[in-house]
Amino acid sequence: MVQYIEKLSKEEVLSRIKKLADEIYNEFSSGNPSIKLAVRGNIKNIEYDEKRDIITLKEKIGSREFFNLGHVRRFMQTLLVASLAKKLVEKDKTASLREVYYQLKHTIPILNVNTLEEQEESDAVIEDLERAIKAIREQFHIKAEGRGAIYGDIYLRDRKRGDEWNCSKLGRGGWSVPSTIEDIEIGDVNADFVLVVEKEAMFDRLIEERFPEKQGAILITSKGQPPRGVRRLIHRLRKEKNLPVYVFTDGDPWGFYIYSVIKRGSMNLSQFSELLATPDVKFIGMTIDDIDEYDLRKKGAVIKLNQRDIKRINEIANYPWFKKSKDWQRQFRKMMDYGIKVEQDALAANSLEFVADTYLPDKLEHPDKILS
Amino acid sequence: MVQYIEKLSKEEVLSRIKKLADEIYNEFSSGNPSIKLAVRGNIKNIEYDEKRDIITLKEKIGSREFFNLGHVRRFMQTLLVASLAKKLVEKDKTASLREVYYQLKHTIPILNVNTLEEQEESDAVIEDLERAIKAIREQFHIKAEGRGAIYGDIYLRDRKRGDEWNCSKLGRGGWSVPSTIEDIEIGDVNADFVLVVEKEAMFDRLIEERFPEKQGAILITSKGQPPRGVRRLIHRLRKEKNLPVYVFTDGDPWGFYIYSVIKRGSMNLSQFSELLATPDVKFIGMTIDDIDEYDLRKKGAVIKLNQRDIKRINEIANYPWFKKSKDWQRQFRKMMDYGIKVEQDALAANSLEFVADTYLPDKLEHPDKILS
Repeated sequence: MVQYIEKLSKEEVLSRIKKLADEIYNEFSSGNPSIKLAVRGNIKNIEYDEKRDIITLKEKIGSREFFNLGHVRRFMQTLLVASLAKKLVEKDKTASLREVYYQLKHTIPILNVNTLEEQEESDAVIEDLERAIKAIREQFHIKAEGRGAIYGDIYLRDRKRGDEWNCSKLGRGGWSVPSTIEDIEIGDVNADFVLVVEKEAMFDRLIEERFPEKQGAILITSKGQPPRGVRRLIHRLRKEKNLPVYVFTDGDPWGFYIYSVIKRGSMNLSQFSELLATPDVKFIGMTIDDIDEYDLRKKGAVIKLNQRDIKRINEIANYPWFKKSKDWQRQFRKMMDYGIKVEQDALAANSLEFVADTYLPDKLEHPDKILS
Repeated sequence: MVQYIEKLSKEEVLSRIKKLADEIYNEFSSGNPSIKLAVRGNIKNIEYDEKRDIITLKEKIGSREFFNLGHVRRFMQTLLVASLAKKLVEKDKTASLREVYYQLKHTIPILNVNTLEEQEESDAVIEDLERAIKAIREQFHIKAEGRGAIYGDIYLRDRKRGDEWNCSKLGRGGWSVPSTIEDIEIGDVNADFVLVVEKEAMFDRLIEERFPEKQGAILITSKGQPPRGVRRLIHRLRKEKNLPVYVFTDGDPWGFYIYSVIKRGSMNLSQFSELLATPDVKFIGMTIDDIDEYDLRKKGAVIKLNQRDIKRINEIANYPWFKKSKDWQRQFRKMMDYGIKVEQDALAANSLEFVADTYLPDKLEHPDKILS
């Protein structure tokens, strides 16, 4: 059985696609052709691997059958995507999800039926192909949009183009992390740790304060929930360079879940956790304790929880990995008791420099203030 | 009377803020202190300067008076922002809109009233300060979020940090354009024109196809409606480097309006058109004619107009600058007659390479297919 692996060569991707096609071709003469693939992850069929601290998929194989009226459309679409993926890899091109949709959409003559109606259909089928050949779509050259940014004393190289650059020498914006980084090689790094920051404005603040230079940090901003390119980069920095990683988000259920996704993977992509998640990252803030510690309530720098927040707190507080942690349960309870949340930008209520000169150094010096 | 100018030195910004404060201070002894500022732009008080092909503000001076119950809160807030802006410029720091909000929010003792309740209040007051001292907020070091990207054979320099880089040597993502580019100097450019692309996926496509190298183009993506940093960059490339600029958007009212904003400025920022707009940019596509010319309808690559689209078409078709143009009126009419719109990604229905190898070169060779 093939497995997800960190680096999949061009030949290996092509051979997996060809194997899928060969099997179907042979089944056409022998019986009922079908595409076998792992069932998609959701709250019911995922497993929390406590030892490795990662979300994985309870593998259950499903199939799309040709001689099944409910399956045949999806069967046909999966073959279309597989065929396009093969061409992309062969020609060394990368297509966006939207381009894939337009490339594959056409009207089937005589039947007068469209191969696809909406992009949602091709997106779903691309996921099917991922689970059928056990490769993330980036490995067969299909990408989404959504970028992050990285700043710090680190060299990156684009393998195909030969470009190389230092991410601290591109002005204060750093380097923009694309949605697929499979062609990027990580070169020399001169830093002690990685700090992942939820918001771009905080990323900019820390750069302006020269935090990366003063503290030996590589800064990454996920711009909210991190796109896959950013998750891959964090994963690889940890794995290839053995750097500790801290996550810094808003003190609200959405921020806490960003941390959770970076650390343990997400439910619907649970089959890729081993390529996308970074199990031993730690959470530096904002915690609800910070509100007291840095006197943010008195400064009017907190925000009342709304109904959506409360619903979300109740949901994620019950995820097994948050549930087993006393520290996290205390944060959730305190947030509910106080009825407030706090943004990372709120530290500016003290001073613009405060986050870089006081807050983060204080946390780094006191591991007991850091959650995991 | 002070005016908006392209480059405002640190001393000049500080002197404008100080002058504002001095005037108010003097008025406190002599009568009713007030802040004078140009009234904000909207459809009624803007002027379309047909000769310069730019939207400008019919200048009407309003005031915020201290001895006016309806004005005093805003008066106080404007002074708070002016005072913070002065500190930012002096200390050479840049703050985000959100940071400004947190920096200025506090409870006034005795009165027990908050200086600000929501960020909308500080955002509005920052705009007031822009119109009171005639400087864009980037010039007094306050920035929004939102980035674009630039790719091509062009050197940029960060004046304050001393970094210099070539935007074609940073991998296929190019350089990320920050929300303020006042510290960026434009160095050598080796290109014949600038192409501004609405969507990031199209930007990526053209880079993968080596369009900038083959055609001598500098590519910029606005990622939808362009942030101010991107508009400033387009403006400066045209002005400082005298490069022709083409805009390439979806063929729908939203895409057409992106073009309009880049070219003529936007209504609510009409007072800054001279710093943000680029009057002689041209529109390369997508036009509704393209649907016929490149056979996109038959390929199922068009989308039905919805009610929101139709409402928006009726609005913008009546803006004076679109109204006076026969070419644009024809596009609007045709869009309504066909009842469809077309995305730039739709060109992938032909082939991934089509946009770079056929569509754009074809347009560039036939100026009659380009709108202005």
